[in-house]
Amino acid sequence: MESQAVHQFFFQLMVMLLTARLFAELFARLQSPPVVGELLAGVILGPSLLGWLEPSQVIKLLAEIGIILLLFEVGLETDIRQLAKTGWQALLVAVSGFVWPFVLGFGLSRLVYDRSLLEALFVGGTLTATSIGITVRVLTDLKRQHSREAQVVLGAAVIDDILGVILLAVLYEFSRGGDVDPANAGRVMGLIAAFFALAPVFAKLISLLIRRFELISQTDGLIPTLIVSLVLFFAWLAHAMGTPELLGGFAAGLALSRRFFLPFGVALRSDPAFSDRIDTQMRPIIQLFVPIFFVMVGLSLNLRVIDWSSSFIWSFSLSLFAVAVLGKLVGSLLLRGAWVERFAVGIAMIPRGEVGLIFAELGRTAGILNNEIYAALIIVIALTTLLSPMLLKSFYRRFLPSVPVRGELPR
Amino acid sequence: MESQAVHQFFFQLMVMLLTARLFAELFARLQSPPVVGELLAGVILGPSLLGWLEPSQVIKLLAEIGIILLLFEVGLETDIRQLAKTGWQALLVAVSGFVWPFVLGFGLSRLVYDRSLLEALFVGGTLTATSIGITVRVLTDLKRQHSREAQVVLGAAVIDDILGVILLAVLYEFSRGGDVDPANAGRVMGLIAAFFALAPVFAKLISLLIRRFELISQTDGLIPTLIVSLVLFFAWLAHAMGTPELLGGFAAGLALSRRFFLPFGVALRSDPAFSDRIDTQMRPIIQLFVPIFFVMVGLSLNLRVIDWSSSFIWSFSLSLFAVAVLGKLVGSLLLRGAWVERFAVGIAMIPRGEVGLIFAELGRTAGILNNEIYAALIIVIALTTLLSPMLLKSFYRRFLPSVPVRGELPR
Repeated sequence: MESQAVHQFFFQLMVMLLTARLFAELFARLQSPPVVGELLAGVILGPSLLGWLEPSQVIKLLAEIGIILLLFEVGLETDIRQLAKTGWQALLVAVSGFVWPFVLGFGLSRLVYDRSLLEALFVGGTLTATSIGITVRVLTDLKRQHSREAQVVLGAAVIDDILGVILLAVLYEFSRGGDVDPANAGRVMGLIAAFFALAPVFAKLISLLIRRFELISQTDGLIPTLIVSLVLFFAWLAHAMGTPELLGGFAAGLALSRRFFLPFGVALRSDPAFSDRIDTQMRPIIQLFVPIFFVMVGLSLNLRVIDWSSSFIWSFSLSLFAVAVLGKLVGSLLLRGAWVERFAVGIAMIPRGEVGLIFAELGRTAGILNNEIYAALIIVIALTTLLSPMLLKSFYRRFLPSVPVRGELPR
Repeated sequence: MESQAVHQFFFQLMVMLLTARLFAELFARLQSPPVVGELLAGVILGPSLLGWLEPSQVIKLLAEIGIILLLFEVGLETDIRQLAKTGWQALLVAVSGFVWPFVLGFGLSRLVYDRSLLEALFVGGTLTATSIGITVRVLTDLKRQHSREAQVVLGAAVIDDILGVILLAVLYEFSRGGDVDPANAGRVMGLIAAFFALAPVFAKLISLLIRRFELISQTDGLIPTLIVSLVLFFAWLAHAMGTPELLGGFAAGLALSRRFFLPFGVALRSDPAFSDRIDTQMRPIIQLFVPIFFVMVGLSLNLRVIDWSSSFIWSFSLSLFAVAVLGKLVGSLLLRGAWVERFAVGIAMIPRGEVGLIFAELGRTAGILNNEIYAALIIVIALTTLLSPMLLKSFYRRFLPSVPVRGELPR
């Protein structure tokens, strides 16, 4: 971008925010995930349809802030105690729901469609992480958010997210080198392990400093500037350590989450009122920036240059979609307990979302995924997110209307 | 800006936010205005001292969002009923506190220092608007925020702001044309009058729509995206009408302020709970963006290229400072009532702030103010803001310790 006029920038930003909001609301009314509406807003405004918006450098950087704030929020909402409660069941569902889609997506791309190794890795990676938001809402509508299967799904989605982000860091390193290098992967895994072990502790210590500072501060607006600075700092630190920026956002969020605790720190207990203030004050900022990212993803998609008459895009999208659904179902069937609950868990795990979109976007900007593969991934993500709530509702109405809400599966 | 790396952008932004916060806090502790601390942060980081930061295009656009959000906040806090209460006294103080500094600043630049007509107009304009924030805080510390003189000062400052913003729009038009054209000024005044008459009403109607929409919305984050969009839209509209963008921010804020009411609209009464939600959710966003603007102003200042050995910068700054102080005092002496109260009002009106900085910045970017005049203006603004609280406190301790807090001046 050259020197974009200020009023043009204001107008672009306004159009993005308003269109995103409109379609998010529309999709919410259709009982569909708002995020798909925001994607669609980007598709409509972008080269695929109207061609009104071409994202400038500024909008792209605002979208980058959007991603790290999104991962910050994912981290913030991660409930580590929840994981401990659902324990092995959730871990089992998560790991198999991570491994199967990855292996199937990778195999499909590599063996059936003969894509390059890096491409196949990104396609597999995109299918791994579960987007739990929409499922939680459906389960809440059905008044089953406290059921045991809901708890398993929540736990599994958290683990999924973490595994997905780690895989993303490894693929990010590959994409920078342009090649798959196991030694390098090992090094990156080491760095990520170090980052994940140290960053949240470090971030937690800083957040305690911020809390102290807040108590004696004589100015307004401490939390927005300091917490955003903290997130930016960890994003920068993650980059400096050779991992993706968004890992830093996630680590910072994890450290500030209500349920995060330091191993030795009795004296370092979370202060719920402080967490509440962070939550209240960061949420509007997150809500402002995150839609910019999703609209950007839609803008990045050019459906016009795709050859819709070739069978490739259709067969690839549909088989990838099948793989994405099956991959998540397989894992849940390994659970113990009644088969209906197992299926409910599997269906609830189907939606892909934020992390998948970040995978696809990273693969595209690194020049690894071409426009068609990218489009197929976005389509698959959108379909899984649209399918799961519908499936889940009809499934519950048919098979589980009489199951008590807090019915415990045998451990 | 070319394609700035994401992590560099994150780092720049973080350094700006943290340094601004640090100095704001430091200044607050020294009983001085935080905004001067934020300016100083920019001076330290910028070419004047360390030379670490050169604002990229992105940072500049974020600063632009900062300005319009700042003006939005000024509008939001404008209390029109307050004006009605203090009435003529406030109007008198405001108008004379607007006219005298303008005339004196203009005369000094034009006649004594032989600057160009446009330069002199910008110098005069910079001295007009009172920054009331710091004064209110001092009066609150002295428990005199409900006194009659405080009310007069508050009312006058609001009128000052409005007059200042109107003058800014006229000068903006001159700066675009590169010349002073009375016919053009008339046209701009007409447009501004139209904008000020219509925009708040229009914005109010939109805000009522937003409130309706919020009641039935099924998604989160409606207020941050819609209110920011509203502000961006009015900024864009203001530009489209040939007035500065920030006028739009101000109009939007005015329309959303608690005390704004439409002439005929009994049915359109403000909803205090809705205003509260806007306030709570917009404040963190404003607090995040506004410091970026003030740091930018500091960054724009290059104290190194100024010839400090020449007498010009010293004599110009000091005489301008004298004029800035005297100009505000003169107006207050026209009030009726005890001379101590008149002086208190005058001293309280001395601080210049946000609007003055915007004047200076606009004059600089339009190529009208050279580095030395710009530096002198920033120095004068900083000095007035530092001087007034000190003066006010010692004045009250000496002359008004025994005056009852709610003592009414004769009308």
